[in-house]
Amino acid sequence: MVVILYLINTSVRRAWTEEGMIILGKQRIGILGMGTVAKGFCKTYFMNKNEIDNKIDASLDIEKVLVKDIDKKRDVDLPHSVYVDDFNDFNLEELDIIIELIGGVDPAFEYIKKSLESGCHVITANKELMAKRGSELLKIAKNNNVLIRYEASVGGGIPLISTINDALVSNKIVRMMGILNGTTNYILTKMTKERIEFDVALKQAQELGFAEADPTADVDGFDASYKLAILSKDAFGVIPEPEEILKQGIRNISIEDIKYGLELGYKIKLLAIGERNNEHVELSVEPALIPIDHPIASVNNEYNALFIEGNSIGEVMLFGKGAGAMPTGSAVLADVIDVIKKNKDYMGNNNAKNIIVKNIGLSAYYVRMEVLDMPGVLGKIAVAFGDYGISLDSVVQRARGGRFAPLIFITHEIERMKLNDALKTIENKEYVTEIQSIIKVVK
Amino acid sequence: MVVILYLINTSVRRAWTEEGMIILGKQRIGILGMGTVAKGFCKTYFMNKNEIDNKIDASLDIEKVLVKDIDKKRDVDLPHSVYVDDFNDFNLEELDIIIELIGGVDPAFEYIKKSLESGCHVITANKELMAKRGSELLKIAKNNNVLIRYEASVGGGIPLISTINDALVSNKIVRMMGILNGTTNYILTKMTKERIEFDVALKQAQELGFAEADPTADVDGFDASYKLAILSKDAFGVIPEPEEILKQGIRNISIEDIKYGLELGYKIKLLAIGERNNEHVELSVEPALIPIDHPIASVNNEYNALFIEGNSIGEVMLFGKGAGAMPTGSAVLADVIDVIKKNKDYMGNNNAKNIIVKNIGLSAYYVRMEVLDMPGVLGKIAVAFGDYGISLDSVVQRARGGRFAPLIFITHEIERMKLNDALKTIENKEYVTEIQSIIKVVK
Repeated sequence: MVVILYLINTSVRRAWTEEGMIILGKQRIGILGMGTVAKGFCKTYFMNKNEIDNKIDASLDIEKVLVKDIDKKRDVDLPHSVYVDDFNDFNLEELDIIIELIGGVDPAFEYIKKSLESGCHVITANKELMAKRGSELLKIAKNNNVLIRYEASVGGGIPLISTINDALVSNKIVRMMGILNGTTNYILTKMTKERIEFDVALKQAQELGFAEADPTADVDGFDASYKLAILSKDAFGVIPEPEEILKQGIRNISIEDIKYGLELGYKIKLLAIGERNNEHVELSVEPALIPIDHPIASVNNEYNALFIEGNSIGEVMLFGKGAGAMPTGSAVLADVIDVIKKNKDYMGNNNAKNIIVKNIGLSAYYVRMEVLDMPGVLGKIAVAFGDYGISLDSVVQRARGGRFAPLIFITHEIERMKLNDALKTIENKEYVTEIQSIIKVVK
Repeated sequence: MVVILYLINTSVRRAWTEEGMIILGKQRIGILGMGTVAKGFCKTYFMNKNEIDNKIDASLDIEKVLVKDIDKKRDVDLPHSVYVDDFNDFNLEELDIIIELIGGVDPAFEYIKKSLESGCHVITANKELMAKRGSELLKIAKNNNVLIRYEASVGGGIPLISTINDALVSNKIVRMMGILNGTTNYILTKMTKERIEFDVALKQAQELGFAEADPTADVDGFDASYKLAILSKDAFGVIPEPEEILKQGIRNISIEDIKYGLELGYKIKLLAIGERNNEHVELSVEPALIPIDHPIASVNNEYNALFIEGNSIGEVMLFGKGAGAMPTGSAVLADVIDVIKKNKDYMGNNNAKNIIVKNIGLSAYYVRMEVLDMPGVLGKIAVAFGDYGISLDSVVQRARGGRFAPLIFITHEIERMKLNDALKTIENKEYVTEIQSIIKVVK
């Protein structure tokens, strides 16, 4: 018979056990920021308070909220006295959980660091911070025997992080393909349905509030690459440096490519892809052609989805709204509840140490070029591809009755480097006017 | 300072804490049955053993397997000595976790009951048992301070149960719509794509192994209704009696209905629906028309999916293969890991006590009838609907150049009772030959 002593410091209502810190009774919450997600969090909690308190056998007491302007009128049911405009007014020793919803790296990193070091669990929805400095924060949390959770940083309300860490724990994740940015998916859906160019679709998206005035973070792939970096940590056990993710946005996608893609049986989506090949992981965010009957091809408008392939479970897809005050606030609240109830580290997935990030692998490609409309050109180009060992899956040739004609190829799987070499040669042929598009094709 | 004593009985390597029982070190597993799912479980574990043992800080030791024929050759890497053909040869006191994979109610119920009462956690993939006697088993588990988990009983590898219980814990679930049976979805997909009748599609499915020789459990909705009953427990806190679920299969779906549905912008799917309306829950398994651009309409072939609406998260859908040795075995293993690591009850969702099961609610309906092909009939029928307060959303009228013509209506939302009354009147009109189909329309 073994006897173990557990000590509970009743003054701060925390108990340390072999399993880590356990919080008891009323949970004292501090929130950094009171924007849309923070409001969504509060509203979700107040709406479902009875059921939630019952489940966790505790209640959430929002004691401090950090805002810029204390006196601003806010559409949320909290007493004026909780608001402070200086983080130093958070007495961290008297708080159990800090929820960070101010976004950006600075000063969020410092605030979270101090919170963890003071023994508070932290919940954050900050994708940029978790992608850029997440590994440091995870270490600080571990060293201080507290938890940091970040479900809401990827995919809004869709439970991607917890599914990878818990439900798929018995699997080695082989591949993930995600539509992780709602703005670009909305724009591509618009372009596809209405046969309009990128600029027009972007403008409409901006007018409807689906795209920011400065759309760079979304349309150039930054947002999706932050999210992929976070998923990579949980799915593959590796956090990439920003430059280790191949990143390409959707500005150059033309309506021509969308039309030819459809003709060949593909849709164009901005895909965040993580793929494990033995000892290395390849990560990319780029527009890709995906077969029209693939489940991820039917994810339209502002919806997000993550398609996961495990080595036992096979294919699983999660789908939902990747943004919005209530879904994201609901994910923050799920993390809060999880921290209160489970109070343990995620088990993580595939924590292999010898994984390296790599960008170049085998893929099929879609190539569109303009050529002189004369007999024999198609054959000559096919031969040129063949000289580089590139075989072709499909070809679309269409005479336009003018001097020039478009030629579209879909290759079999090849290395991108080899394709580039072949296209350099082909581009110099006198009958080729221009290589117009090169887009990855995903199966 | 409070001191709490925790006692660990080292001989059985179990510790009781305030959080329930914790198992330490090597986990002694007993498996009931060695069919495809049990093999999938073993293969998944052996394939990913290193990572899993590392994550759970323990290893799984399969010590006993109950089979009918000890000497049968089996394609699984276990020593012959583990096999027994009598449940009494399981020394339950010396096992930690029992995995039940024999299916059916008897003798599975007794075996599980005894296991729980002997202090073993139980994992089961048995949908019929959980649907019919799950509440008893949950109580027995609770009384014995052990856990029973059943993720693999619904949706194969798709983590439906854990998502409802954990990821969506901050939400009140308002509605679920699921494609929970792969066989019927395969048949309906075949019918839709190849424009063939049910009988032909069923025969093809049987030849390909997607349907059993006796297809009743699948095509008549039993399988889906068991799964819906289990989900209802977790999503709404209510376990229905079998007769409380409205159940209708797909035998009567005609290719005509599929064609007219497509024309009107709908696909026909066998949907398991659970809907919460204040104090009651409505549960049904029936073929339904669903808008072609709804995410669940694009779930084809043998795939399953569950579309969930929470009162904060909005819409989330989970998609994957709802059957198969490896996916289902992988879900069993996830449950085993979960029990070892968490060792606590699911928090459950919406455990309201005053929920009653109810079958009749508002819905739109598709009605197909055959009428005499003469002027004025459509108007007369529309008026007859109007007399019962039923307004129409869409109508398809098509002359066939013969004596009879089909008329298709989609109504606005009404009570089914009212529709029945109206159709009784309409059926008796001299210009109506037959009411051929009445199918629910889901938004």
